[in-house]
Amino acid sequence: MDLDFIKKLVKTNDSKIVMLVLDGIGGLQIETDGLTELETAKTPYLDKLAKHGVCGLHIPVGAGVTPGSGPGHLGIFGFNPVKYKVGRGVLAAMGTGFALDPGDVAARGNFCTVDKEGKVLDRRAGRISSEKNKELCKLLSEKIHIPGVEVFIQTVKEHRFLIVFRSVGLSGDLNDTDPQEIGKKPLEPKANSPDAEKTVKIVKDFLMQAKKILADQHPANMILTRGYSQKPVWPSFQEVFGIKSAAIAGYPMYRGLAWLLGMDLLECGDKLEAEISSLEKNWDKYDFFFIHIKPTDSSGEDGDFDRKVKVIEEVDKLLPRIIKLEPDVIIVTGDHSTPALLKSHSWHPVPLLIWSRYCRTDNVEKFGERECIKGALGPRLPAVEILPIALANAKRLEKYGA
Amino acid sequence: MDLDFIKKLVKTNDSKIVMLVLDGIGGLQIETDGLTELETAKTPYLDKLAKHGVCGLHIPVGAGVTPGSGPGHLGIFGFNPVKYKVGRGVLAAMGTGFALDPGDVAARGNFCTVDKEGKVLDRRAGRISSEKNKELCKLLSEKIHIPGVEVFIQTVKEHRFLIVFRSVGLSGDLNDTDPQEIGKKPLEPKANSPDAEKTVKIVKDFLMQAKKILADQHPANMILTRGYSQKPVWPSFQEVFGIKSAAIAGYPMYRGLAWLLGMDLLECGDKLEAEISSLEKNWDKYDFFFIHIKPTDSSGEDGDFDRKVKVIEEVDKLLPRIIKLEPDVIIVTGDHSTPALLKSHSWHPVPLLIWSRYCRTDNVEKFGERECIKGALGPRLPAVEILPIALANAKRLEKYGA
Repeated sequence: MDLDFIKKLVKTNDSKIVMLVLDGIGGLQIETDGLTELETAKTPYLDKLAKHGVCGLHIPVGAGVTPGSGPGHLGIFGFNPVKYKVGRGVLAAMGTGFALDPGDVAARGNFCTVDKEGKVLDRRAGRISSEKNKELCKLLSEKIHIPGVEVFIQTVKEHRFLIVFRSVGLSGDLNDTDPQEIGKKPLEPKANSPDAEKTVKIVKDFLMQAKKILADQHPANMILTRGYSQKPVWPSFQEVFGIKSAAIAGYPMYRGLAWLLGMDLLECGDKLEAEISSLEKNWDKYDFFFIHIKPTDSSGEDGDFDRKVKVIEEVDKLLPRIIKLEPDVIIVTGDHSTPALLKSHSWHPVPLLIWSRYCRTDNVEKFGERECIKGALGPRLPAVEILPIALANAKRLEKYGA
Repeated sequence: MDLDFIKKLVKTNDSKIVMLVLDGIGGLQIETDGLTELETAKTPYLDKLAKHGVCGLHIPVGAGVTPGSGPGHLGIFGFNPVKYKVGRGVLAAMGTGFALDPGDVAARGNFCTVDKEGKVLDRRAGRISSEKNKELCKLLSEKIHIPGVEVFIQTVKEHRFLIVFRSVGLSGDLNDTDPQEIGKKPLEPKANSPDAEKTVKIVKDFLMQAKKILADQHPANMILTRGYSQKPVWPSFQEVFGIKSAAIAGYPMYRGLAWLLGMDLLECGDKLEAEISSLEKNWDKYDFFFIHIKPTDSSGEDGDFDRKVKVIEEVDKLLPRIIKLEPDVIIVTGDHSTPALLKSHSWHPVPLLIWSRYCRTDNVEKFGERECIKGALGPRLPAVEILPIALANAKRLEKYGA
């Protein structure tokens, strides 16, 4: 079932849908026969929604596939992440609010440390402060000159920054220069297709100039680049699903992705409580709210089982404020699993609950991985099916056929 | 999700995967409210793996489809059996170790008994001995001459043999001559496409000569042929999944299929115990072991419920020897169901368990059809998803996207 099919069924009404994304919510038991993070957490409000709604687990991309944040979110937004691809550079641009023109090539930059031979000693330059990053980006912006090309360099956070090249005839079809390992030299940029040859020349020039400019800036004495890409041309969320949508997300990548789909980006900061306040404040203005909760993922990545449990419990405590707004549909899920045991994203199915006045009650009593297996949405729902089901529960889809 | 998608995510490490295939494992209760063969069997070790791993049932080819052994195995090896087709003739060639050249046409032959009018009385010629078979194959090899064509005739077992035609411009696109019923004459070979017309002429000549040569060899006084086919050109198992693979299988068809995918064929014989010894002996040499257990299927085909139960219990007793080798991932499943009640392959979903250190515990306590419905892999997992999930559990797949 593709977007064109759903698009034809869409109708509008005044219903409201909240999609609460606990990034990396899915977990794993640490010990044999143990409980996962979500199963361990005391979540009376989530449990009540789960009991009265429908539950299941979703597969973000495909069987066995561990999704990055981009593909993970695209899936739960109803966009097949195998078909709709977005580069890291474009995500970084979107996240900083940089208005990419069609044709611009964006890349993610990392300040890094290299030794005298040019071999990478630290891929993140000791995670320099955002202040130092700003200073270096200013320096690069002032000093780098490439004839016929506008170059934009903007701080993201810590060691991370954004590079945008603006000219005619550019392409994002070239390799990363980040070798992904210490002890190796940065890779030479190479064109993956003839289209990208002009861009490769520009990037080589850029990297050579950057190297000279940063030479005495140890530990940030070189840069690594990744994810050269151009803004993709996609249908917007509103165009496909007929909903006026807003994103409440603190972190650049998620804001960028939401913007790429045409969602409005609301002010919120990165505290959970502030995100809910933003929801309350903007309640009347939108049909669909994507609320992104980052620390479930960060605590999982840190391998901190207990902190992940606590974050989930904090989110649960904020739920009554969402419920009080009387949304027609509430979706609670994640973009992928991030088990503390693995300290990384994983391939495991992601717990999912959809609540509305019109859900057919299933056998699930609590919101947890094992309980969700018993749910009406099944243990392996393709993520792209979540949004059509939510729209149906909001009575926003016409009958198909006579 | 196709093989090309998975191939791009594959990385290598030193993990080991064991796939234990109990051919035809899925069964049926004989009486209303009764238990299946697998549910009846006492299987403490399988139950323990099921409890700590993830379970489900898989669909080898598609809803309602009863798979032959070829498609059944291709599915659990991750190759879509609707897309990847292999003829019975090619399988027979592979199983006897015959080195098919590209362009060769192979077919399965059966010695059969015909009456004076040429009508088939026994499609298997009373299952003549393999010795008699060898004698007859020798006779045919010596006497049959077709200008411009090399003909190879090799004993398989009992009444079964292999025929290979080698020439230029051949095609396997013609029908079986086996009428699949007694009381009927063998069918005339006919080309399904113009490409096969030369081959049809050769086959007609071959059958006419064989008829004359065998006329006084009652009960083996004629032959039936099936599965004309050419060696398909496929990516190898190692190429796609990045795993060095070996097959421990006693029967020609399964060895043939494994060889076609580029697996090494290990010596084993057809005793269960000898198969496990072969696994132990070769443990250090491979990343992936396919172990094929035939008698679950043969007992099912014979309608022998109790023998099938016993075979399953024997396999269970051998499991500790596999577990002792400390594989990273263990898969236990079948290529299809063979319920004793039906005395044949069937369309029923096939019990499946995957065990690794990183499985998220589900609600399954024992390995059996009804229990598996409660599993995290769901009651109808497409068979082709088994291998990507196993690779993920072996940490052999990269994250998809940033």
